[in-house]
Amino acid sequence: MPWVKVLGGVVGAAALLGLGIILGHFAIPKGANQPASQELDLDPEILETVMGQLDANRIRENLRELSKEPHVASSPRDEALVQLLLQRWQDPDSGLDSAGTSEYEVLLSFPSQEQPNHVDVVGPSGDILFTCRRSEENLTKDQEAPDVLSPYAAYAPPGTPQGLLVYANQGSEEDFLYLYNEGINLQDTIALTRYGGVGRGAKAVNAAKYGVAGVLVYTDPGDINDGKSLPNETYPHSWGLPPSGVERGSYFEYFGDPLTPYLPANPSSFRLDSANASGFPPIPTQPIGFEDAKVLLCNLQGNSAPEDWQGALGCEYNLGPGFRPDGNFSADSQVNVSVHNRLVLRNSSNVLGIIRGAVEPDRYVIYGNHRDSWVHGAVDPSSGTSVLLEISRVLGTLLKKGTWRPRRSIVFASWGAEEFGLIGSTEFTEEFFSKLQERTVAYINVDISVFANATLRAQGTPPVQSVIFSAAKQIPAPGRSSLSIYDNWIQYFNRSSPVYGLVPSLGTLGAGSDYAPFIHFLGISSMDLAYTYDRLLPLPILSLPTLALFPQSKTSARIYPTYHTAFDTFDYVDKFVDPGFSSHQAVARTAGSVLLRLSDSLFLPLNVSDYSETLHSFLQAAQQNLGTLLEQQSISLGPLVTAVEKFDEAATALGQHISALQKGTPDPLQVRMLNDQLMLLERTFLNSRAFPDERYYSHVLWAPRTGSVATFPGLSNACSRAMNTTSGSAAWAEVQRQLSILVAALEGAAATLRPVAEL
Amino acid sequence: MPWVKVLGGVVGAAALLGLGIILGHFAIPKGANQPASQELDLDPEILETVMGQLDANRIRENLRELSKEPHVASSPRDEALVQLLLQRWQDPDSGLDSAGTSEYEVLLSFPSQEQPNHVDVVGPSGDILFTCRRSEENLTKDQEAPDVLSPYAAYAPPGTPQGLLVYANQGSEEDFLYLYNEGINLQDTIALTRYGGVGRGAKAVNAAKYGVAGVLVYTDPGDINDGKSLPNETYPHSWGLPPSGVERGSYFEYFGDPLTPYLPANPSSFRLDSANASGFPPIPTQPIGFEDAKVLLCNLQGNSAPEDWQGALGCEYNLGPGFRPDGNFSADSQVNVSVHNRLVLRNSSNVLGIIRGAVEPDRYVIYGNHRDSWVHGAVDPSSGTSVLLEISRVLGTLLKKGTWRPRRSIVFASWGAEEFGLIGSTEFTEEFFSKLQERTVAYINVDISVFANATLRAQGTPPVQSVIFSAAKQIPAPGRSSLSIYDNWIQYFNRSSPVYGLVPSLGTLGAGSDYAPFIHFLGISSMDLAYTYDRLLPLPILSLPTLALFPQSKTSARIYPTYHTAFDTFDYVDKFVDPGFSSHQAVARTAGSVLLRLSDSLFLPLNVSDYSETLHSFLQAAQQNLGTLLEQQSISLGPLVTAVEKFDEAATALGQHISALQKGTPDPLQVRMLNDQLMLLERTFLNSRAFPDERYYSHVLWAPRTGSVATFPGLSNACSRAMNTTSGSAAWAEVQRQLSILVAALEGAAATLRPVAEL
Repeated sequence: MPWVKVLGGVVGAAALLGLGIILGHFAIPKGANQPASQELDLDPEILETVMGQLDANRIRENLRELSKEPHVASSPRDEALVQLLLQRWQDPDSGLDSAGTSEYEVLLSFPSQEQPNHVDVVGPSGDILFTCRRSEENLTKDQEAPDVLSPYAAYAPPGTPQGLLVYANQGSEEDFLYLYNEGINLQDTIALTRYGGVGRGAKAVNAAKYGVAGVLVYTDPGDINDGKSLPNETYPHSWGLPPSGVERGSYFEYFGDPLTPYLPANPSSFRLDSANASGFPPIPTQPIGFEDAKVLLCNLQGNSAPEDWQGALGCEYNLGPGFRPDGNFSADSQVNVSVHNRLVLRNSSNVLGIIRGAVEPDRYVIYGNHRDSWVHGAVDPSSGTSVLLEISRVLGTLLKKGTWRPRRSIVFASWGAEEFGLIGSTEFTEEFFSKLQERTVAYINVDISVFANATLRAQGTPPVQSVIFSAAKQIPAPGRSSLSIYDNWIQYFNRSSPVYGLVPSLGTLGAGSDYAPFIHFLGISSMDLAYTYDRLLPLPILSLPTLALFPQSKTSARIYPTYHTAFDTFDYVDKFVDPGFSSHQAVARTAGSVLLRLSDSLFLPLNVSDYSETLHSFLQAAQQNLGTLLEQQSISLGPLVTAVEKFDEAATALGQHISALQKGTPDPLQVRMLNDQLMLLERTFLNSRAFPDERYYSHVLWAPRTGSVATFPGLSNACSRAMNTTSGSAAWAEVQRQLSILVAALEGAAATLRPVAEL
Repeated sequence: MPWVKVLGGVVGAAALLGLGIILGHFAIPKGANQPASQELDLDPEILETVMGQLDANRIRENLRELSKEPHVASSPRDEALVQLLLQRWQDPDSGLDSAGTSEYEVLLSFPSQEQPNHVDVVGPSGDILFTCRRSEENLTKDQEAPDVLSPYAAYAPPGTPQGLLVYANQGSEEDFLYLYNEGINLQDTIALTRYGGVGRGAKAVNAAKYGVAGVLVYTDPGDINDGKSLPNETYPHSWGLPPSGVERGSYFEYFGDPLTPYLPANPSSFRLDSANASGFPPIPTQPIGFEDAKVLLCNLQGNSAPEDWQGALGCEYNLGPGFRPDGNFSADSQVNVSVHNRLVLRNSSNVLGIIRGAVEPDRYVIYGNHRDSWVHGAVDPSSGTSVLLEISRVLGTLLKKGTWRPRRSIVFASWGAEEFGLIGSTEFTEEFFSKLQERTVAYINVDISVFANATLRAQGTPPVQSVIFSAAKQIPAPGRSSLSIYDNWIQYFNRSSPVYGLVPSLGTLGAGSDYAPFIHFLGISSMDLAYTYDRLLPLPILSLPTLALFPQSKTSARIYPTYHTAFDTFDYVDKFVDPGFSSHQAVARTAGSVLLRLSDSLFLPLNVSDYSETLHSFLQAAQQNLGTLLEQQSISLGPLVTAVEKFDEAATALGQHISALQKGTPDPLQVRMLNDQLMLLERTFLNSRAFPDERYYSHVLWAPRTGSVATFPGLSNACSRAMNTTSGSAAWAEVQRQLSILVAALEGAAATLRPVAEL
């Protein structure tokens, strides 16, 4: 669109907006007789309207359409959904101001159709004694859809290793070390591992270090089905994972397009040779269902596996190597893992839709979810996309009617190729790095919107806590209308805050969905919202009534059972995950309310002083667990203590300043300047040189922590590496460097929060 | 200062400002009856007042005080000048809103007082046949001041190499290669080199590659004195360098504190072990005067040096090795270079003063110069500091009188330890990285304000061209009052612009002064201003009258003759560089006008579309000089062409949009948003991963270019490295990576300039 037209549009919209104000659609800012549009603030009436219009049945209908067919990244159906989203966002009555697509050429990994992957037990003479299923059982007709992708481990290299089978628990470093210490020769074996514990790709990385030739991965019914494993106990009879179900997934270690790190994957972009790309599993790997895993595992010989390695397949799990002579296979039978995955360059699209802000169009609130699934992806990701479409419909309708326009711009995003490693979102952040860093107020991610019906689950950086709380307090919890989402939530996840007392506890952001590039690479305050289980953990209150209402919510499953399988279908959601879609609606309302508050509030509802709690907790952990160690090396935590104190002071003072201003009628630029301080705080924690070995991670508070102490990740990791080295080692120097990086970041953060004309 | 007090100050100032408006001190914005302070714009009357009050004699008095004593970084006199600056900026009648110091603990290098460096000719039996001066001749009493630092090469390592002398011209790679090809065995020799051609440290780096054991550096009268070398032809009889004068300087390859790259050098910061620090010269190095160099060089044996290696010492320059038997020394005499420099951690201070902006206090215009000198430093840097103090006095006086307050904040900076490698300014940018990147509109550097009296010389990135032109057009040229500075300037430095026709030509920014961290590390639009020579180069017009008026300005000297010597004194400036100080005044006016325009204009006077000319010129050079080469490797410049076009379009459209808005009465937030686009453009050219081998350099347009083609530096350098490698080499992959980095940066820049609600 040429800019002159856009300008015209803005002016037109502003005129319309003026009319809106006169018609009383907008709250009159306190103390102003003639509200200027520049003082546009959150309108509780609009908020209520939106909450009222977010419709459970429409979400259900969205989901039915979105999950009708498998739509793995770059497939024809994925492209069809691109068009569906475009059409919705370009709808004259309920669309956005503009919408478009942006396409990247990215490296994906698919199983070969001509040479299907297979896993067999092979007798000593080469005869095949047993073959694992190549696809899931057709239980509800959905599984026979033509585009159901056979189970595979994306990015696992092709190869046909064959060897004695060993059982390696979850495939962690400790697991393989245990086998090694047990005297088991792992060279050229095939390791059978369970999902869980460590990342998918890590199982093969750890295995390869011990000479293992191939890896199998399965989901134990003890980990996913609360122990249930029989066909009549599982889907379609319950929400349990059927015996043939296989979790697909990306085994790529990093995120973003593997061939274009730090560069947008445009057709002309420089690409690594795929042989030089890093982060792929080193050895062939294949996932299988627990029905097949049972045949393999229950026939293993060798010592019995430790108790916490045992599962619910109904037999004693032995370590191997090889099968026991009294089982189904002869003792010298081997397992052959034939993987024929292929790396292919494919076009994958993001769909972006924008509502121009009326007052600050250059401030973006981004709300996104991925579009691509592994199979039908009803829960993952379409439960999120259905909510996204319903929110955009309600806001689009208000927009087209002229009832409302947000203060700031809202960007809706449907990311491509998330399942392969957050590719669409990462390429987007690479392409618009500067602009997004300069202008983005916050990123809201709703991927799987409903895992289960027990409670809200929110992850995010501290500044978003307050806005989520505000939203959650005003929305009734699904099915339990006497409680707000907040009051329900606090019963499931809570913590004692030194500032607020008992509050719902926010999780931290790893790299599980598209928020990762926004928080770790761009330093944008981010969050991820969903409704989820009642975890089978000792909880003080209210477990029983919850269980009665939502039986499937009470679970110890590591994730919802049909995750990444051909059983994650509309029928599954409709019958078992969220019958009535009230949890979907609850998430739509929560996310919608958070979105509106961020886009419309005169003062950004980001409470930066909530970072103080994190800093203090990290600092305390460092003092308690690393203090003595550091002292022995003459490394002082004093500068860190001082930096945290400076942050506290600056954040508190800024908060008080904002409170004082909110009582008066601050001028638009005063508000803008304060909001810029709030927006940019998260950016001050970035240091692109802090973690040279970690791709994209540059947030000094949220980078991956491998060290055992729950403190600042750079410090924790450096200490755990230095611990067994001598004084004066490079590892101890790195501890000091990490401390300095941290102190500089916190001092910089405090400087950003202090009055702007102080240096 | 606690922020509550600052807030009080702001409110008070705003009230005062209101009064100011009523009293008619401010221009009434077009079309507004009741000018709101948010529309505060540049007031031509204030500008004229400031221009009128900038006083040549006060600048002279400033210079007298500042250059009274030697004030090398961290010396007592340097600290005394910190107090002087603080006192001026805290003056109740002419000071700023606030001022303070910030101290860093940085690694400096000094000659030993106990063991002075010395250079001797040593006979075969060890007898000393000749000794170079250890200090400069006392010609004007200034040279006998107690704190005159003996000549040395800062950061050159200690050592006492001794060997046969060779003459190595300017010590470039080509120079040593020439000697090598001449069959000269360079192993264990001492290389005598001339200043010029390559950087100081590079001479030793190049020498060491050939086994040279020590390096001497001198300034040839042919390079500095237009050939004059006799005592009665040089200072104090003219502005020429006396025979005993020695240029000191930093031989450190990078900039910033050598031990704390990318971290502020606070006392607690992690420091590299100085043995692990990089960038120091590998072998002992010592500078000497041409008086001594003559004795060494005119006695060399061997082949005659090439013609362009000859100089003005009055003899034939031979290559060596060793002395000719018929000269002063026996043929087997050697030269001993005894260097006893020591690395020491010292406290060095920046002084910062701030004038709070009335409307946008969170937008900074930073104006800085270093304070430290090598000796008295009258020209370098005190000619700049005298101007800085005069500008801050005039503005401070208006401020304290309540006559004026800028729209944006003005930050004045007096940097410490620049001479050792831009240390104070670099540490400042490291300490306040985020905040400065987010908020700084532009950086103005005035280091040496007057080299000579012929013409203005400006270096900067394209967006600052227009504001310098605007300022220069309104100020009379010194001594030639019929011409403006602009009209005079265009006669000395000019170029034909495809857009504007003949205009003065702006130089580009290297790393010669404190602007370097601002432009290369932070991506802040920067400039450096000075008055300078009439270069002895073929120029079409006006050389003769200029010569008549300012005889010393007509020169081929590589820099003003007493640069970094004990002869750079007040007397020198007062008598020879700028008698009457009218050039100082002209620079004060130019810099002051640029500062006011940047701080006060409603719309930032940064013309981003002027970047188009640079991009086109770089693109054209790439097409003409690299096009065929790249084609042979199947590397297309197409995406780069497209990106440049997109930039053009976006920049032009933004310019038109601003022009249109300027005719109306845009609201404050509209102005702010557009200004943010202008301010942040320069940031979009940064890529911290573009040049992993270059410390701090991340601006993809202005990083150092070693390749021979005057195009985008990453592309030029990568091509020159790839040129002799085979297809498919890593070097050719790097060419492609550099192209992609460039395309991504230009696309990102265009995206930043496009209407903000377009994605």
